[in-house]
Amino acid sequence: MAAISYELIKKDKETKARRGRLTTPHGTIETPVFMPVGTAATVKAMRPEEVKELGAEIILSNTYHLYLRPGHDIVREAGGLHKFMNWDRPILTDSGGFQVFSLGDLRRITEEGTEFRSHIDGSKHMLSPEKSVEIQTALGSDIMMAFDECAPYPADRAYVKNSLERTTRWLVRCKEAHKNTEKQALFGIMQGGMYPDLRKQSAEEIVALDLPGYAIGGLSVGEPKELMCEILDDCVDYLPPEKPRYLMGVGTPDYLFEGVERGIDMFDCVLPTRIARHGMAMTSYGKVNIKNAKYERDFTPLDAACDCYTCRHYSKAYLRHLFKCNEILSAMLLSNHNLHFLVNMMKNIRTAIEEERFLEYKREFYAAYGNF
Amino acid sequence: MAAISYELIKKDKETKARRGRLTTPHGTIETPVFMPVGTAATVKAMRPEEVKELGAEIILSNTYHLYLRPGHDIVREAGGLHKFMNWDRPILTDSGGFQVFSLGDLRRITEEGTEFRSHIDGSKHMLSPEKSVEIQTALGSDIMMAFDECAPYPADRAYVKNSLERTTRWLVRCKEAHKNTEKQALFGIMQGGMYPDLRKQSAEEIVALDLPGYAIGGLSVGEPKELMCEILDDCVDYLPPEKPRYLMGVGTPDYLFEGVERGIDMFDCVLPTRIARHGMAMTSYGKVNIKNAKYERDFTPLDAACDCYTCRHYSKAYLRHLFKCNEILSAMLLSNHNLHFLVNMMKNIRTAIEEERFLEYKREFYAAYGNF
Repeated sequence: MAAISYELIKKDKETKARRGRLTTPHGTIETPVFMPVGTAATVKAMRPEEVKELGAEIILSNTYHLYLRPGHDIVREAGGLHKFMNWDRPILTDSGGFQVFSLGDLRRITEEGTEFRSHIDGSKHMLSPEKSVEIQTALGSDIMMAFDECAPYPADRAYVKNSLERTTRWLVRCKEAHKNTEKQALFGIMQGGMYPDLRKQSAEEIVALDLPGYAIGGLSVGEPKELMCEILDDCVDYLPPEKPRYLMGVGTPDYLFEGVERGIDMFDCVLPTRIARHGMAMTSYGKVNIKNAKYERDFTPLDAACDCYTCRHYSKAYLRHLFKCNEILSAMLLSNHNLHFLVNMMKNIRTAIEEERFLEYKREFYAAYGNF
Repeated sequence: MAAISYELIKKDKETKARRGRLTTPHGTIETPVFMPVGTAATVKAMRPEEVKELGAEIILSNTYHLYLRPGHDIVREAGGLHKFMNWDRPILTDSGGFQVFSLGDLRRITEEGTEFRSHIDGSKHMLSPEKSVEIQTALGSDIMMAFDECAPYPADRAYVKNSLERTTRWLVRCKEAHKNTEKQALFGIMQGGMYPDLRKQSAEEIVALDLPGYAIGGLSVGEPKELMCEILDDCVDYLPPEKPRYLMGVGTPDYLFEGVERGIDMFDCVLPTRIARHGMAMTSYGKVNIKNAKYERDFTPLDAACDCYTCRHYSKAYLRHLFKCNEILSAMLLSNHNLHFLVNMMKNIRTAIEEERFLEYKREFYAAYGNF
């Protein structure tokens, strides 16, 4: 039996938006879904119970980071990532490809894989399709990602073509190396940069491998939003409707809406927890910088329309005070709120699709939120 | 009606240890008690519900810090400290005296009070008995402390005598300024350094003012443990048995045992949360440095005898990993454990007193703990 299955529940009539359900070994995920990121086997500043309580059904964790610290052998010995970090719901792991690619001068890409130096201690390592699958097998994630190269933006056509073709060859090797298919699903990743025909080529090559799900990589890497939307529009059409589609690294509210509108089912981003640690919150009336002096005596909640733990118990004045005192509780409370905000927004999006008013909800949301 | 009342439940036969109960406007506290410290209106790295869950019945917060940030006027406008920080159990506030005293060159003591410069921005301020009471009234703590001078160690007799007499005069002014007596209790603080006769003089002066409780200040300020115990032995005898006794700033397990043995009812210290943030844990088998390489593959809990949240869900290997990655969850989990450890130790001490085996429990604890 396959590790995961995808059920299409409802399609929007005006757009490509769709409401679905993903079943995994650790539980069911309602889609479209936003996945909080727990890079180092922890969603930063959150107890796992809190991540659950705010409604997250799946989290993402990073292969590159866990390979370096604590080491995938230790996670394996601990009984896998779920047990190690006390999270019993589904986990998706990335392949480490994006992270080693981002190391710039510290890495060298060959046909075999990517040689790199650790950002922690400079030690030399090699990530390859086989190694990435080995690590992700040790971690025991419900969904593992293929080892790919995310081409930079901008990049010339020849580079992108060469890169995506290698990514396909790496995907074949990943599939070959992946043995634990009943417990872990392997997703392929489409590349092709900003070239529609290369996107099509990449899609055809990876779809031919009949994997349980597909991701779109190499978007939201610095290109203008309009270009992202345009490319995304094409990309989705090349992917099989009976499989889940995952747009990697996307997490601002507008990009989530644009992604859903174009038929994306899964998203992840560090944004909500990262900006929380810098005193920024997402609310139903737009972005809030809690450092702002105008909140000094504001004894109302961050978002009166929000029922998260933070908004139920604390005022802006208190949150501002915590941030200014550099208190850890500030990161805890704002991370909770921001994750709740995105997870709840996705829930509202799902309901809107079910009730055939997705675009209406999108318009309302944009009008209330203001600048993204 | 007085804000608080103390009930003596049981006296140990072998020592001065005693089991009591303190009733305050925000609830009842079983004594002897350890009070976690929430300096800036937050017990660092903890949600208040977690502090409750681990069994804390009262916390301490700092007047000096809250006066500077966010300002006591803001806490008053928020509806008081309990509401501001979402903690509905009793709160004790210190007077700010110890903090401004600790500023060294940044402060100047006069009969009027203490002039000081903020450690945050260098701005000039004055704390006096009246000002301290004003701030603590705004904070709305259940127990406020008198504004005192904690003489340094070592200090010559003339300095200490002069200082304690001024502290008594300040106490008279505190009592005069304190109007909210039905909602907030004012505790006096005994000083007198390491001079038994000066301790006696201080005690007689402050006890004559018939306050609802008394603290012993100026101990655990750098003197040898034996000297601390010796002075403490005397101090307690000068205090009325029908009033609660509070030993300020004490928080290592051995000092807590020594204090209880000499008749102390209340303790506070930043130690458990501070060492937690440095990767140190207190356990039933002694101190643990979670950074230690030997825990790399140790998949057992921090303390198998502990039923705190951290020990129920996480391994030493995971805690070590979090600490090494500088993850906020590390501070959260170790703070939880350390506070639970001390709060639970005090619970065991209370039970031991009830069951007339305090010294036996002390011996067992010391044997298991090893070096403090």
